[in-house]
Amino acid sequence: MIDYAAPVEDYRFLLRQVLNFDSAMADLGKDVDTDLAGAVLEEAGKLCSKTLGPINRNGDEQGSRLVDGEVRTPSGFADAYREFVDGGWAALSADSQWGGQGLPFILQLWLDEMMSATNLSFGLFPGLTRGAAEAIAAHASEELKATYLPSMVSGEWTGAMALTESGAGTDLALLKTRAVPNGDGAYAVSGQKIFISSGDHDLCGNIIHLVLARLPNAPDGIKGISLFLVPKFLPDDAGGFTVRNTMSVGALEQKMGIHAQPTCVMNYDEATGWLVGEPHRGLAAMFTMMNAERLMVGIQGLGIAGAAYQQATGYARERLQGRSADGARGPVAIIEHADVRRMLLNIRAFVEAGRALAGWTALQLDRAHSHPDAQARAEANALVALLTPVVKAAFTDFGFESAVQAQQVFGGHGYIREWGMEQYVRDARIAQIYEGTNGVQAIDLVGRKLAMAGGAVAESFFNLVEADLAQAAQIEAASVVSRRTSKALELLREATVGLRGGSIDAQGAVAVDYLRLFALVSLGWMWARMAAAPGDTPFHAAKKQVADYFAMRVLPQVDGLASSIAAGEETVMAISADTF
Amino acid sequence: MIDYAAPVEDYRFLLRQVLNFDSAMADLGKDVDTDLAGAVLEEAGKLCSKTLGPINRNGDEQGSRLVDGEVRTPSGFADAYREFVDGGWAALSADSQWGGQGLPFILQLWLDEMMSATNLSFGLFPGLTRGAAEAIAAHASEELKATYLPSMVSGEWTGAMALTESGAGTDLALLKTRAVPNGDGAYAVSGQKIFISSGDHDLCGNIIHLVLARLPNAPDGIKGISLFLVPKFLPDDAGGFTVRNTMSVGALEQKMGIHAQPTCVMNYDEATGWLVGEPHRGLAAMFTMMNAERLMVGIQGLGIAGAAYQQATGYARERLQGRSADGARGPVAIIEHADVRRMLLNIRAFVEAGRALAGWTALQLDRAHSHPDAQARAEANALVALLTPVVKAAFTDFGFESAVQAQQVFGGHGYIREWGMEQYVRDARIAQIYEGTNGVQAIDLVGRKLAMAGGAVAESFFNLVEADLAQAAQIEAASVVSRRTSKALELLREATVGLRGGSIDAQGAVAVDYLRLFALVSLGWMWARMAAAPGDTPFHAAKKQVADYFAMRVLPQVDGLASSIAAGEETVMAISADTF
Repeated sequence: MIDYAAPVEDYRFLLRQVLNFDSAMADLGKDVDTDLAGAVLEEAGKLCSKTLGPINRNGDEQGSRLVDGEVRTPSGFADAYREFVDGGWAALSADSQWGGQGLPFILQLWLDEMMSATNLSFGLFPGLTRGAAEAIAAHASEELKATYLPSMVSGEWTGAMALTESGAGTDLALLKTRAVPNGDGAYAVSGQKIFISSGDHDLCGNIIHLVLARLPNAPDGIKGISLFLVPKFLPDDAGGFTVRNTMSVGALEQKMGIHAQPTCVMNYDEATGWLVGEPHRGLAAMFTMMNAERLMVGIQGLGIAGAAYQQATGYARERLQGRSADGARGPVAIIEHADVRRMLLNIRAFVEAGRALAGWTALQLDRAHSHPDAQARAEANALVALLTPVVKAAFTDFGFESAVQAQQVFGGHGYIREWGMEQYVRDARIAQIYEGTNGVQAIDLVGRKLAMAGGAVAESFFNLVEADLAQAAQIEAASVVSRRTSKALELLREATVGLRGGSIDAQGAVAVDYLRLFALVSLGWMWARMAAAPGDTPFHAAKKQVADYFAMRVLPQVDGLASSIAAGEETVMAISADTF
Repeated sequence: MIDYAAPVEDYRFLLRQVLNFDSAMADLGKDVDTDLAGAVLEEAGKLCSKTLGPINRNGDEQGSRLVDGEVRTPSGFADAYREFVDGGWAALSADSQWGGQGLPFILQLWLDEMMSATNLSFGLFPGLTRGAAEAIAAHASEELKATYLPSMVSGEWTGAMALTESGAGTDLALLKTRAVPNGDGAYAVSGQKIFISSGDHDLCGNIIHLVLARLPNAPDGIKGISLFLVPKFLPDDAGGFTVRNTMSVGALEQKMGIHAQPTCVMNYDEATGWLVGEPHRGLAAMFTMMNAERLMVGIQGLGIAGAAYQQATGYARERLQGRSADGARGPVAIIEHADVRRMLLNIRAFVEAGRALAGWTALQLDRAHSHPDAQARAEANALVALLTPVVKAAFTDFGFESAVQAQQVFGGHGYIREWGMEQYVRDARIAQIYEGTNGVQAIDLVGRKLAMAGGAVAESFFNLVEADLAQAAQIEAASVVSRRTSKALELLREATVGLRGGSIDAQGAVAVDYLRLFALVSLGWMWARMAAAPGDTPFHAAKKQVADYFAMRVLPQVDGLASSIAAGEETVMAISADTF
């Protein structure tokens, strides 16, 4: 396999010419500019290429194993994690109050892209820690924060989210794990959780589980769920963490991919934990974690797509098969063949616009956290809420489709393990499922996010896109993609109006198609902004060429999506459940 | 996992009400009717459900292994193969001259569907044998036929196709294996082949390899390739086959899926073989094999999709999550949720129409072989040639997409091995790649098949579809799907005209989109015929409902495909190879 080339040139271009990073940071009073950000991303890229990439294949082959009840990660993972922590990468975007570097979230998200590109299983360890730390920072008592956050932020300890049970996945109302007060402020947590990523491992000294459970006499349903902090090692009297909590790994899930990542069945047997946030309000705390994780999961699709693109492009340059189109030369590199280019361009048309859209969304998150003006913070927060299901679902769908297409470029060699392409496909698949399946994301978008502020949030986003497209359409290089995306935006607006006030079934039956339409418009918007960026380098020329490809060969699918959405739920609900 | 339910009711419906099987057989003078065919398919279904299905999961877990240079198949495979042969299933559609039962090919193709549904790895053993036997029957000397065909047709021996080399996959012009005359009519074949399915195993007594190689002083390129019959065991003087040929398994490929199927690296070291067909005309002989295999591979996609549908539907009926759409009941079976239905209906909309289209194509093959009128044979043969790349590529693409959607219905449970859904995805993936990648199929369709008879073959197919749709449109239950498919057919006709005489790049850049458009029209055609079938049973009502779903929710993608095809190669070829 080719070494991963971190897309630092692309990041710098986006920061400087597309996302106006320097002025955005100035607005937030942050002392970070494109030069510093570029330097950080370059170092991050080296870590990913040199440390995380080389252990990815063995991580898949060897997998995490359960030995005497404890998880052993594959060779090299513990050393790589040490290097990751020592370099300060775990603390990159965390609040300085807890020892974080306080760098903008956009750097974090792009670091996530590069980690996902080189080692998805590895990236989940710090990724889940960050989500857990955010929930603790937002909802836990000062004492819990002071006790747990510094070590989680530094990466000395990791976090895990223990939500799912065998009978309660998407529907957390059904969960059965119980928490009983011990009388000393702590609780005894008992139950079994499944699909717990990073539930146990040998990378560091402690693992902080956030566990959803019910208090005695809690109301039924989701209004009776509370969140508990349950560490693998409890505090001892000497200020250390040496007391083993009564929780254990029941089994490791045998999975399609991400073999290096220990996905645990966890048993909590009167394990000691502390309430995070209010009783019965665990879901709110959980959503703090989930929202952060959902953006990261979207980026996993992007990362794998970018890595698969690099491998497929490298292979297509080297592999000689067939003759040139004029029949004069042969064998030629398969990158000369139109159908191979089509596959590569499909991937690239997603990856580069996805990277831009992820960056834009991350900057909104930075605004939401740090803008001095409350109104600006609220607006940015609403935009992030709107875009989160789109990024999570569309990026992981496109990411999986990209991995499959990159594998296809290799022909038979793509199907055998040796070339690593099939691992991308197996690993990418999980991102469409976890942190809320992509169907759940689509229903979140259509059922909840479109309804925010009576529809005003979506409307303001569409207005923003429309204004940008109108501006970009004035620039010749961006005119094709701008005009065509404007037409697609009209379809999206119509579909949005059509869905307003629809029944649960009417929304559910078309939500996935609607989300894809929304995502294609958003990618077209980013292609317009990128193509409009001034410059006459080959780099700029390529942006314009791929923007045209996107407009002419990818975007047309919006017509079919709009028709399918307009057809609504009738044919979906007509058939009786027995007849399936 | 749920036991596979063979779709015999659907087969009987298609034979009787859609494909007019009895009159088709009467035309061919074959003494087979729907009753007999249904009985055969029912028995075949039992074999697949009871014998092949139960060993599929272990086949994946255990895989085929190389032990002391010989392949050992997973537990149960040898017994299952014995049962398969003893039941006469290997000989089902083979010529009675060689001991075959001479039953129509449509039964063979639907047997292939059920084998693929229950055990794709297993089905490849007889499938490849059949292709090899057809090539021998069509091209080899009488002596070779008499020596090898009876045992291959009965299944006592199996076949393998040895085409690919590490530097020669799609482009067989590059292959390097050599064959030197021994002076006694035989040849010494030397070289290495990769990706050889069923290259070695322990299921039966002999393995007949058909090997592409170059004779001394052969012309360069594909015009210098000859085909050789190279058996694992050579004839001895006593009339037995006990002399081990100088060929060996270099390694087993480590693959994404079909682990039970031994995909071999084969080394031929002056192995004894005999020429099949004319010197330097090996490609023609090879295409005899390939064409038969390509239909079978398409059916693999269909089979897995149907099996995955059954599992996903069963799970969706049992799995309780969330509330009913009116909020009154909960938890409810997820089959009540619109988005889950959408996924299931997408699969079903492909599977049932694909089954019909496969049947229609198989009947054309029966006509091409057995019709008393030469003109009718030629016309049917041309239609099979036209449809073969469509069935191979579209069915395997839809098949993979179906497996992925069925896996998605399971949420996190779809990603773990326990439920078997991830095996479907891994196994289905190969069918898009082998026997000519789906990109190669699309180029075959656009570059060669559309050009047949100056375009008249495609035109006659479109006329046939148009006439059927016009007729079906008169029946109320079929009117929506007929009218909408007629519009899609117009787009297909326009696209066909647009491609005529286009450059290699112009065809290659849009071939995959064109093939998908062609396939969607063909599926719509079959939905129209099925929906138009008279009957007021719940079975007929469901056909009409799924036809409407297909028309309203699947077919609309033809608009985007047509736009993308019209956009042509410009944006695909604009970017320089260096810039990728």
